[in-house]
Amino acid sequence: MSSSRSAAIPAQPHRDLPPTPDFDSYPVSAAIVEAVAEDDGRLLRLVWSDGRRSRFHAIWLRDNASDEENLNLETREQRGDVTDLPADVRIAAVTIDEAGALEIAWSVGAARSRFHPGWLRHHDYSNGRAEDVAEIAREPWDAATLPEPPSFDGAAILDDDETLEAWLLAVCRQGIARLRGLPAEPGMVARVAERIGPLRSTNFGRIFDVRVQRGPGSNAYSTLALTPHSDLPTREYQPGLQFLHCLRNASLGGRALMVDGLSLAEAIRRRDPRAYATLTSTAWPCNNRAVDSDYRWRGPVIRLDAEGRVDELRVVPFLRAPLDLPFDRVEEAYRALRLFYETVAEPALQMRFDYRPGDLVLFDNRRTLHGREAYEAAAGSGERWLQGCYGEREELLSRLRILARQKRARATGS
Amino acid sequence: MSSSRSAAIPAQPHRDLPPTPDFDSYPVSAAIVEAVAEDDGRLLRLVWSDGRRSRFHAIWLRDNASDEENLNLETREQRGDVTDLPADVRIAAVTIDEAGALEIAWSVGAARSRFHPGWLRHHDYSNGRAEDVAEIAREPWDAATLPEPPSFDGAAILDDDETLEAWLLAVCRQGIARLRGLPAEPGMVARVAERIGPLRSTNFGRIFDVRVQRGPGSNAYSTLALTPHSDLPTREYQPGLQFLHCLRNASLGGRALMVDGLSLAEAIRRRDPRAYATLTSTAWPCNNRAVDSDYRWRGPVIRLDAEGRVDELRVVPFLRAPLDLPFDRVEEAYRALRLFYETVAEPALQMRFDYRPGDLVLFDNRRTLHGREAYEAAAGSGERWLQGCYGEREELLSRLRILARQKRARATGS
Repeated sequence: MSSSRSAAIPAQPHRDLPPTPDFDSYPVSAAIVEAVAEDDGRLLRLVWSDGRRSRFHAIWLRDNASDEENLNLETREQRGDVTDLPADVRIAAVTIDEAGALEIAWSVGAARSRFHPGWLRHHDYSNGRAEDVAEIAREPWDAATLPEPPSFDGAAILDDDETLEAWLLAVCRQGIARLRGLPAEPGMVARVAERIGPLRSTNFGRIFDVRVQRGPGSNAYSTLALTPHSDLPTREYQPGLQFLHCLRNASLGGRALMVDGLSLAEAIRRRDPRAYATLTSTAWPCNNRAVDSDYRWRGPVIRLDAEGRVDELRVVPFLRAPLDLPFDRVEEAYRALRLFYETVAEPALQMRFDYRPGDLVLFDNRRTLHGREAYEAAAGSGERWLQGCYGEREELLSRLRILARQKRARATGS
Repeated sequence: MSSSRSAAIPAQPHRDLPPTPDFDSYPVSAAIVEAVAEDDGRLLRLVWSDGRRSRFHAIWLRDNASDEENLNLETREQRGDVTDLPADVRIAAVTIDEAGALEIAWSVGAARSRFHPGWLRHHDYSNGRAEDVAEIAREPWDAATLPEPPSFDGAAILDDDETLEAWLLAVCRQGIARLRGLPAEPGMVARVAERIGPLRSTNFGRIFDVRVQRGPGSNAYSTLALTPHSDLPTREYQPGLQFLHCLRNASLGGRALMVDGLSLAEAIRRRDPRAYATLTSTAWPCNNRAVDSDYRWRGPVIRLDAEGRVDELRVVPFLRAPLDLPFDRVEEAYRALRLFYETVAEPALQMRFDYRPGDLVLFDNRRTLHGREAYEAAAGSGERWLQGCYGEREELLSRLRILARQKRARATGS
């Protein structure tokens, strides 16, 4: 057994701290005051200056060491795989050095590894998981609690990171948020989306125009009303994000309809548990109807995750394919789907708003169903014109993490 | 009750058949010889000229009718949702007309609907699901049964649909297939990929260069050996397809290593059921290490579908994040992951081959793990140069369906 105690608590990260196995900054909010190897060197026990106690496995520490044997320091990526770690690695000795770093001498392999105390504290799995923006709580809403999308300053979005962050956090929480006062210029929707990350191109292109178009494109390109739906349910992975930017709107009608999938699912579950069970377990087929593509997918209208929470909705009335369930399940599937759409149509669940030129709405395409009222395009195809594009939720999460990382870097002066 | 019998069996689809609710062609392989409404008009029973018997629900037929009340004939998409169908729709009368179409008079709503017999036969859910290329059987392989990728004529791929179809079908079956003799030109990989559908852009760009690059990009951009892995496990949805096109290769080493995820999973399952259970149930976190992005995801190394079949593998040694499982599960997770990589390293499972300039390999990124041997870039960064891009499996399936549809259209003269 080996043990060590530190003397002082540094107020700021010490400049001689070792690199971390990533490009992030880790403030040192507490110092390691005691470090003891246990269980014949298989475990490490730490005590921190604020009284917290932590434990780490030797194999975990060896795997995450940021020394050259383990890590390509240029990319901060591991050099090898887990078979390159000694199978029975142990801690031979442990010390806390002058900078506050933990230093471990190993029983085999690399002589010593040093660990940044801020990094260790952040990844202290013996006290639970580190916080992550991906686990930010979703806030269900309805027409009474959220009559309009949370709105942010479109003029600031291209330059100001604070506005960007606030807008994206609202999308995480409510599944929808709006920018107002953007220039009503074609292509602007892509410039805004690229503030987050790469777009997702589809057979409709990199960006698409929602206005009256002749031909076999999509009901979306007509004046028809559209029941609230998710886009591209015919794909294995529906896009996580949808951006819609209003360039012109002089039509009569055509108000946007938005429904929170979380509130919708909960309303159905309370009202008719049998229909809810059918909707969450029946794989309804979707297909597109197109001259040069033939996308198909089948999935539950409401998909739950392993914990029974709503993971995504997958439903487009105008892309429903011929149902091919076992014969005896067809009538119940129709009954449940009817209840689903009756609930979607309830005004108490629907946010309704008009698009002004310069408005841009971003929503979680797999949580927030979107639709519109029918409209009259008085003088042809220019009267109501939205431009849209798709992105992914993971790009949004990455951008939020980077914005937070940049703040940490400024705070720690690194 | 209403019933009708047809007199003759048409050899070819009759020119007066009604439109179908899609853009496909449906050969008439058998005629409807008897049609009877049952259960007070809630069900339809058909007898075909080859003796097959089918049943359909009235609600299903009303939902799939291709009349103007139901369908936007321009887009072939439904006009409304399921609440627009009469809740208690019934068949008032049924006849088989001179063209061989089924004609139904409804109890409410649209007076009559006509159904194409080829379309009805294809969607006869009372006799099971229609065949689809997405359900083509996957064929597991190892180094003995598939020592090289199935190979096809690269010179033909841009123009010849037969070659394209054969190549893509091999990818469905084996999870990997190669083109040889393509021009070794930058950008060619995107031209080939677009024969299938839109590319998937990522933070690495629309296409990426796999060669020695300085800086914090990725271990892939070094001369390091790469253990077989999937790409982009840090994303909620790993790309379904990866294309790698060899432009130059004068390096020593650097042979490609490919491992079939189906065979790999089966080998682990047989050898160590406990490790298999750990690998299929433990959500291992992945993160990228980058200056300007921070993608993270967690998922099982081997993900099974609801029927217990391998759905995808998600594993990159050099993107493994600090494991944050409950403390007592950490050592078993490392033990299982070690077994996983030991199995990956077995020569009996590894296909090894050299890239020649002009070779292009397409593989299912979520089934087929890819890696490489270390290599020496003798005279700098130009010695081994692959260009790659990502796509999605659904694009491949759509392309195969369209190629099959075009053949059917030629066969039925439509």
